[in-house]
Amino acid sequence: MTDIATLGEFGLIKRLTKDIQIKNPSTKYGVGDDCAVLHYPKTETLVTTDMLMEGVHFDLTYMDFFTLGYKSAMVNFSDIFAMNGFPRQIIVSIALSKRFTIEDMDSFYQGMQAACDKWQVDIVGGDTTSSRTGLAISITCIGEAAKEDLVYRNGAKETDLICVTGDLGAAYMGLQILEREKAVYYSQIEDYNKKVNQAKELHDEAKLKALQQQRQAFEDFQPDFAGKEYLLNRQLKPEARGDMIDRLRALNIHPTAMMDISDGLSSELMHICEQSNCGCRIYEKEIPIDYQTAVTAEEFNLNLTTCALNGGEDYELLFTIPIGDHEKIKNIEGVRQIGYITKPNLGCMLVTRDSNEFQLQAQGWNPLQQK
Amino acid sequence: MTDIATLGEFGLIKRLTKDIQIKNPSTKYGVGDDCAVLHYPKTETLVTTDMLMEGVHFDLTYMDFFTLGYKSAMVNFSDIFAMNGFPRQIIVSIALSKRFTIEDMDSFYQGMQAACDKWQVDIVGGDTTSSRTGLAISITCIGEAAKEDLVYRNGAKETDLICVTGDLGAAYMGLQILEREKAVYYSQIEDYNKKVNQAKELHDEAKLKALQQQRQAFEDFQPDFAGKEYLLNRQLKPEARGDMIDRLRALNIHPTAMMDISDGLSSELMHICEQSNCGCRIYEKEIPIDYQTAVTAEEFNLNLTTCALNGGEDYELLFTIPIGDHEKIKNIEGVRQIGYITKPNLGCMLVTRDSNEFQLQAQGWNPLQQK
Repeated sequence: MTDIATLGEFGLIKRLTKDIQIKNPSTKYGVGDDCAVLHYPKTETLVTTDMLMEGVHFDLTYMDFFTLGYKSAMVNFSDIFAMNGFPRQIIVSIALSKRFTIEDMDSFYQGMQAACDKWQVDIVGGDTTSSRTGLAISITCIGEAAKEDLVYRNGAKETDLICVTGDLGAAYMGLQILEREKAVYYSQIEDYNKKVNQAKELHDEAKLKALQQQRQAFEDFQPDFAGKEYLLNRQLKPEARGDMIDRLRALNIHPTAMMDISDGLSSELMHICEQSNCGCRIYEKEIPIDYQTAVTAEEFNLNLTTCALNGGEDYELLFTIPIGDHEKIKNIEGVRQIGYITKPNLGCMLVTRDSNEFQLQAQGWNPLQQK
Repeated sequence: MTDIATLGEFGLIKRLTKDIQIKNPSTKYGVGDDCAVLHYPKTETLVTTDMLMEGVHFDLTYMDFFTLGYKSAMVNFSDIFAMNGFPRQIIVSIALSKRFTIEDMDSFYQGMQAACDKWQVDIVGGDTTSSRTGLAISITCIGEAAKEDLVYRNGAKETDLICVTGDLGAAYMGLQILEREKAVYYSQIEDYNKKVNQAKELHDEAKLKALQQQRQAFEDFQPDFAGKEYLLNRQLKPEARGDMIDRLRALNIHPTAMMDISDGLSSELMHICEQSNCGCRIYEKEIPIDYQTAVTAEEFNLNLTTCALNGGEDYELLFTIPIGDHEKIKNIEGVRQIGYITKPNLGCMLVTRDSNEFQLQAQGWNPLQQK
């Protein structure tokens, strides 16, 4: 493993960007000058940004650098798709503390590149610098859409159908599993260290030797994730739903409002209702949930609907369409109609399986209330 | 002072962005959706980004939030001017730890807004989140330039004149002063605490009381910066040189290559020579240096030319022009011709006052070699 200081900032940037090949005609000049130069003569330019902080948004205990790079890029694409546009360029800033190596950065860039290759996006620049502690990542994504294709949050109208892609709550359940395994791992280490210390105090050489032999077991610790692969993938390697944007266009469906679900369905739906000045009514029984999410919620003794409504990080699309498109939308596999838009004075309501009604609450992840 | 968690992410964003008024026709939609929407039908779109980490790029001991906001925006504008373009939008990400208040963020936004007002730039979006320790800022700036106006780093030609705006080394000297006063402040506090502890050990109540009365003096500590205002301003509140871009255009001067001087003249000049495949020859006696910079370098026993060549953070413009523009450039006050471009095999040379020649070395600030 190689210390980054040996390359310096410019050396590192050269190494990380040397294999980048420009794929978009809108990219006129990429990495290597004071700015990237882009050209969007006919479409609207979309810009979005996301900041990811170590210990808040990701945990390197259970996420490798490739996956982190992939996810960092993908969550930005998701915001562009949510406007009914397509991502074209990203610009990447990273601040690193001394504990990271050149090889870590290679993997991070390979992960970003894999996500970019999937959607034909160019890496066109950025900033590489140091941090006192931890890793900070900021990615800005530029995309495009024809003016008439753009979908904002504020266009939902009474009687519109509310639709979501994929299934919800799985990324959150994936996180619970990872956190549990991490806790198990650390408690085993703590236990082991306690035994070693006891043996040392008692000068029990035989015991110490036996413990030393167990040590390898910890270093090789592989948590048992059998059967949970789908949930883990949803958390670690989300896929932005550009495929759904393609399908909606192919069927000539133009959503009236759209968002990606990053903070949880409740929170996003309330944004759409607030900005569109309307209410909504969604049905618990229609919320799409994967079988594994349901099983795992039970395992963790968590309320499944709460997980699906507030889990976050699903990166599915939430959108509204005119009721007249009801027949068209039925033809898209993986889209579920979960309710409809109402008058504003009716509020944002959830109709439960037993026909009770509750006001939706945005219990989504609030990054500013973390420790 | 108010804890940020009381507002939550969306509440904070609303508060910070409520007074923003869009000034540019290219801004179609600003804060409030998944993306900002921009429109650049006739020009090239320029994109640049900078990440600023607490403890690495700024120190809140001697920088208030307004100034930090101002500088964070300004350094991004500087990169757009360096392409011979004009900034139009910024998108701002901030990660905060718990010790920051809503009022801190208000000041930060006011500082950014002041910089934006100076150059008619719109704040169009961003991300507000938390960090485990310290403050991280990432700003992406979008600007525009007609294709024929763009200036890259790679266009310098043999015999071109090398010019710099303003003066160099002042921001670096400002930093030295701030660091010195900070060290004085902390050593006085340490000294004071030692005396208090001694008095406590000796149960010397009279001494303790006297010390307590001195305490206010520390809390009111105001370092003596008289006569150093220019240097401090250069460090804390740099001005991107868009005024020079205006003047070059008015005189119909089109630089062949250009950069802003953020890492130091030597480092930037070597970038231009490397990317333009040429050498250069600059003259020590022509490097523009303010009188206060010279006085303070002597005070600190630092080599003045080294400070001017490698100091960094001046945010002046370095550019090359065809030798035929020699007469035109003479008319711009505040532009100095410091040398000329040579064949690549002649290297990057500094001619000293006593006519010795030295190879230039990029000793500029390397963020990845910090502690």
